[in-house]
Amino acid sequence: MPKLDFDVITLGHGSGGVLTNKLLDSGVFDLLGNDILDERHDGAFLELHGKTAFSTDSFLVSPIFFPGGNIGELAVNGTVNDLAMCGAMPRYLSLSFIIEEGLPVKEFWEILVAIKFACERAGVQVVTGDTKVVEKGKGDKLFINTSGVGPIHPKATIGAKNIQMGDRIIISGNIAAHGMAIMSVREGLEFDSEIRSDTTNLNHSVIGLIEKFGPDIHLLTDPTRGGVATVLKEIARSTGVGMDIFQKDLPIDDQVANACELLGLDPLYVANEGLFIAFVSEARADAVLAELRKDENGRNAQIIGSVVKEHPKQVILESAIGGKRVVNMLPGEQLPRIC
Amino acid sequence: MPKLDFDVITLGHGSGGVLTNKLLDSGVFDLLGNDILDERHDGAFLELHGKTAFSTDSFLVSPIFFPGGNIGELAVNGTVNDLAMCGAMPRYLSLSFIIEEGLPVKEFWEILVAIKFACERAGVQVVTGDTKVVEKGKGDKLFINTSGVGPIHPKATIGAKNIQMGDRIIISGNIAAHGMAIMSVREGLEFDSEIRSDTTNLNHSVIGLIEKFGPDIHLLTDPTRGGVATVLKEIARSTGVGMDIFQKDLPIDDQVANACELLGLDPLYVANEGLFIAFVSEARADAVLAELRKDENGRNAQIIGSVVKEHPKQVILESAIGGKRVVNMLPGEQLPRIC
Repeated sequence: MPKLDFDVITLGHGSGGVLTNKLLDSGVFDLLGNDILDERHDGAFLELHGKTAFSTDSFLVSPIFFPGGNIGELAVNGTVNDLAMCGAMPRYLSLSFIIEEGLPVKEFWEILVAIKFACERAGVQVVTGDTKVVEKGKGDKLFINTSGVGPIHPKATIGAKNIQMGDRIIISGNIAAHGMAIMSVREGLEFDSEIRSDTTNLNHSVIGLIEKFGPDIHLLTDPTRGGVATVLKEIARSTGVGMDIFQKDLPIDDQVANACELLGLDPLYVANEGLFIAFVSEARADAVLAELRKDENGRNAQIIGSVVKEHPKQVILESAIGGKRVVNMLPGEQLPRIC
Repeated sequence: MPKLDFDVITLGHGSGGVLTNKLLDSGVFDLLGNDILDERHDGAFLELHGKTAFSTDSFLVSPIFFPGGNIGELAVNGTVNDLAMCGAMPRYLSLSFIIEEGLPVKEFWEILVAIKFACERAGVQVVTGDTKVVEKGKGDKLFINTSGVGPIHPKATIGAKNIQMGDRIIISGNIAAHGMAIMSVREGLEFDSEIRSDTTNLNHSVIGLIEKFGPDIHLLTDPTRGGVATVLKEIARSTGVGMDIFQKDLPIDDQVANACELLGLDPLYVANEGLFIAFVSEARADAVLAELRKDENGRNAQIIGSVVKEHPKQVILESAIGGKRVVNMLPGEQLPRIC
């Protein structure tokens, strides 16, 4: 961390004047710098050719530090993953801070370092940004918006309209870890071992699959807010297809499952951050699963169900003991400020 | 405004579940819809070719409604103008809301309508977005982030390194209107006629100049936070050039000038939103000025000074009575939450 003559961030650091420059010059530009960012213009100059994905997300997770990560890497991974879900190769990020007056510089710096490493892992550059400060009590420590752009992989044909009857629904790993990590901190719960957020960048894993299986990957989506249930139901509703999924095939860590039970939460609705769902052609599903399991991010991957002709627009879950229930979207709010 | 069964926005509207969909389907998608947004994927699919600008800004103006506009059009115009200052033709915006629980839906809707019209005026489309809600007391009604992309105009050669000795510094209109409009509401000041924000989209005006004068436009910048003084000093500092500017040539509305005097504010440091500064070749400066004055956004345009060899890195202001003073960046914060 650089030596600074201030310990906390004040309103002046969002003025656009001397203090803003002091804050940015104190190490932010050194840490995140690259040829494009270093131009320091009102916007970044990029070279883009052809089909490009563009995505945005604001992050307001509370607390800003949690087991397995902090809001900084969450903000990078979140937008990187949204781009990857488009079949894009994330390249450039914007980074916009809304800081509550009084945030310790030490915490801000720790988050910046996490951003830097998350960018390196994902292979993206922060090319433009913004820093604003709100008065104490008008924000909550730190909100971060990231937007991102990146070229669509030439072999990607991702889109809800590509889903076909019989498609297999593959999930890349254990569910509910991120939500339960946040919840355990908020509720002061202690377990035998810490429940850690699964936040990570999925772009290399996803692009690997697209590279190998191209048009057999029909749709990709990451079940963040609202969890697996909400995202599947939303797809069923918007495309009109039905889905059957099987509880016995849903991968979940024992401790996370216990924590959910303890708090009366259905893990199907708990947020994930380092997880994706792929709709894959029936013919290639086993091959995709085998390939995905070779990947660190996919070692617990499972086929959890399939797209069916019966019950259009409905997602039906078959429970471990054979009962069936209709899966709906999260009706209210289970865990506010999860991402 | 659509008929809804809720009057205020609650945490559930940011859940990503049923209520989020209800809010978005209540008219947001109808209002802002276009072929790209309607895909409703995790990101938008764009076609981009060649040099492209990418910019981001978060808006936290308080109050969210002010004379001459609201936070919605400010958020569209702000990013549109940042792209225009790169010599780009703004095309696509992302739109991310951070809503404080309890925001009246009526106000949210009014802001959405302002966003729609601002997009139409600027010729841009909202193609991707995000909606989050924070608990009461953890935000302040509404924060908006917009990011944008657009192709660089083929005749644009904008960049601080293009500034040349003798360049004329042109300002497109009256200074300090936005800041004083916000200030007058906050302080409950009343004037003979209302001071209104100058928020507007500058892209058509700027692209018109680039189209006509191409490489004679060396640098463009919009003096928002920190005002004209801060932005000129920042350029002087980063490029190493000196500048002389003349107070008598600085266009300002009488009432705005009086309001500044009343509050002891130097208008050179007050934020502008619908204003730009162009560094233009000496040879073509008069022609650029004449062209700009034909434009609604440029009718009060003036040449306020020039780039000089003397006093590198310094901006010197000659006052109306002939005295000289060094212009520095805004040292602290004059008006927090101005944009």
